Amino acid sequence: MDNNKSQEEKVLARRDFFKKTAAVSVTALAGTSLFANESAGTGDPAIMNHTKWGQAWGDPVDKVPYGMPSKYEHNVVRRATSLLSSGNFRASIAVTPIQESKGIITPNGLFFSRSHGGVAHIDPNEFRLMIHGLVEKPIVLTLAQLKRYPSVTRTHFIECPANGGQEWRGPQFNSVQFAKGFMASAEWTGVYLKTILEDLGLKPEAQWMLAEGSDNSKMGRTVPIDKVLDDAMIVYGQNGEALRPEQGYPVRLLLPGWEGNLCVKWLRRLEFSQEPWYCKEETSKYTDLKPTGKAIQHFYANEVNSTVTSPSPEIPWTDIKEGDVVEIEGLAWSGMGTITGVDLSFDGGKNFVEAKLKGLVLPKSWTRWSYMYKIPKNFQENGKQIILASRAMDDAGYIQPTIDQEVGVMGVEAVYHRNAIETWEVTETGKVNHVEIRSI
Amino acid sequence: MDNNKSQEEKVLARRDFFKKTAAVSVTALAGTSLFANESAGTGDPAIMNHTKWGQAWGDPVDKVPYGMPSKYEHNVVRRATSLLSSGNFRASIAVTPIQESKGIITPNGLFFSRSHGGVAHIDPNEFRLMIHGLVEKPIVLTLAQLKRYPSVTRTHFIECPANGGQEWRGPQFNSVQFAKGFMASAEWTGVYLKTILEDLGLKPEAQWMLAEGSDNSKMGRTVPIDKVLDDAMIVYGQNGEALRPEQGYPVRLLLPGWEGNLCVKWLRRLEFSQEPWYCKEETSKYTDLKPTGKAIQHFYANEVNSTVTSPSPEIPWTDIKEGDVVEIEGLAWSGMGTITGVDLSFDGGKNFVEAKLKGLVLPKSWTRWSYMYKIPKNFQENGKQIILASRAMDDAGYIQPTIDQEVGVMGVEAVYHRNAIETWEVTETGKVNHVEIRSI
Repeated sequence: MDNNKSQEEKVLARRDFFKKTAAVSVTALAGTSLFANESAGTGDPAIMNHTKWGQAWGDPVDKVPYGMPSKYEHNVVRRATSLLSSGNFRASIAVTPIQESKGIITPNGLFFSRSHGGVAHIDPNEFRLMIHGLVEKPIVLTLAQLKRYPSVTRTHFIECPANGGQEWRGPQFNSVQFAKGFMASAEWTGVYLKTILEDLGLKPEAQWMLAEGSDNSKMGRTVPIDKVLDDAMIVYGQNGEALRPEQGYPVRLLLPGWEGNLCVKWLRRLEFSQEPWYCKEETSKYTDLKPTGKAIQHFYANEVNSTVTSPSPEIPWTDIKEGDVVEIEGLAWSGMGTITGVDLSFDGGKNFVEAKLKGLVLPKSWTRWSYMYKIPKNFQENGKQIILASRAMDDAGYIQPTIDQEVGVMGVEAVYHRNAIETWEVTETGKVNHVEIRSI
Repeated sequence: MDNNKSQEEKVLARRDFFKKTAAVSVTALAGTSLFANESAGTGDPAIMNHTKWGQAWGDPVDKVPYGMPSKYEHNVVRRATSLLSSGNFRASIAVTPIQESKGIITPNGLFFSRSHGGVAHIDPNEFRLMIHGLVEKPIVLTLAQLKRYPSVTRTHFIECPANGGQEWRGPQFNSVQFAKGFMASAEWTGVYLKTILEDLGLKPEAQWMLAEGSDNSKMGRTVPIDKVLDDAMIVYGQNGEALRPEQGYPVRLLLPGWEGNLCVKWLRRLEFSQEPWYCKEETSKYTDLKPTGKAIQHFYANEVNSTVTSPSPEIPWTDIKEGDVVEIEGLAWSGMGTITGVDLSFDGGKNFVEAKLKGLVLPKSWTRWSYMYKIPKNFQENGKQIILASRAMDDAGYIQPTIDQEVGVMGVEAVYHRNAIETWEVTETGKVNHVEIRSI
């Protein structure tokens, strides 16, 4: 290669200075075809508004060593409600404003948080991770030692298996954030557990791994060895910086695509054994109660799922008029693989059109989809109110079931692993309501 | 597809409750082969440390609607210095701690910030973007109207062309953050300008676009129409939320791979014309002064570049011993395309080995690279101190020049577009110093 090529291009690109054009005057403003009612442009005091800005210095850059969102974004926050807290916000859930999400990264400040005993604050200098049981060389690692293993970076969502789980008996929240925001997505950096186990020597009889946290709930879950040796990671980085305290600082377990509670936070201990532990949180909780009174255990993956994020009850179409062309957007995700397609319905799931997958499509990761849509008269298709419903499918061969299909198998006693197609009604004024379409 | 397959799998996965295993006792701890001096494990008070955690409730989740990093990460911040501020921190630079970076996303709180008149705070309800000049339908858009155009999400770095530009005459900062941190990377969401221009109708004689900000510097730059119609975006989303004030909230221009100052923040006006404007910031500044006294204009792309990020002057190898295996890491990037490879030298650039590209490799995006390295005796290779140097190449056919090559063409009067190979000396105690290797 020619090392100097770029410099040559610089020289070729040189031009004379001060060849200044005449100022182009501002011409009359008019609306565009995107806005059917010409809502843009006309009569707009834009130029006057412009003059009020830029009359004074802004803030100096050394005043914000770690920045925060604009004060005008104060409503874009995680939210908790006593309906999700069992009366104690230390053992509770703070949901992500997915109606405001963009792309497939959630900023760390808005990342979904679930805690069983409150957010712990661990001193990284005193952090230790013990790895023992059925390994040849048990060890206690400091954080610096853990970071010595070769690192890997992967983009994955983490989802609570209770996402939407309040709604087995019907919608409880007229809100995308509360109905579907028990999840978020990030670029994670850490170490594959298989890398550490190659170093320590896993005994062949090891079949299960206990992961234990150092929060006051001593969160404990056991993980089958196949998952441990597939893609399980110990992560210390999230979106380019250290994990946040709410995500288990300094270290959490990450099991891509599996229940969020298995991704134990404030991790302190991994123990390998021949049998599972049956910890509290995998017997009384995080199992799926069937109508028979028996519960399903050892089912860990978050199944293929999707939701409409725009429009939403929070951000409706009230400024949108007949004939406007709008982008309907949403998210799709699967803990079993990669999203292969998303269908969108305007009649609550009877008929579907194909949505477009946007941007990066990665395994066990949020995938954004969209559909350009022309607003019909009175928000009615074929004389009926629009009822939006999205249906995702993945490369493991799964597709989201209808509510009837899922309830037919599971009944309504379960809490977790609900992935039926959700429905969102658009009223004649453009408002959006979370509704349920079922026949049983 | 079979909608019920996942439910069947749930049933098959069911097991009996309460089959609890005997507790496995903690066995003796030992170091692993990764740590040559058995620094891990032995004599470690890990279990005692564990007991001090988890004795009290943590913080409730509703107390952190928008989270912040752990208090223990207080040193991982943007930094400014009077050396970069011309005496006024409102027209200054705050650099990203790339020595602590992970993956290819920079958290918004740490994103590099350069301002010519301080950080403006624009009310999104009063925001207007005027698009006029050589277009068929000039327009003034509100933020809601701008967001009505179909959105696109892309991961790109933004780099100041002065990154490393203090060092044409030799190293000024014994710091990776100050020497190479005039950049950061994010997932951006917004609208392609070509989409808007299809709607408004660009007149065929339009050759240049003026972009103007509403900060008090009225930052103005002109952009050739080819770039506008290629991949230029107007962005309002960064890493899944609204832009931060320091990044131009609510809207900035994004020209992937081109000089950060061209990506005008607090954007208020785009005007199309036949000739460039020759604004202040593209004549007296942001041009490359040559030894002849003439300056290069109209060169906009940030050329192929790279740096070692670990080890660094900030995070040295002082805890690392002879025989330890460590991961040397760094970043590579090119504003002209996709990184195709990175070479790493241990002797200041005489000999190179091939580093491994890690994770996602995307066009005009940070690309992370690494090399596993066994620490030699006294940190010396062949009897000489280690001098690390990385050299990246891209699919546009460019490779980083040596300092001699670059200075041979450009002299040392320029500020911008410095992309020569950097060198980092490792002392016999594992400390890292920014040094320069040149023969002219």
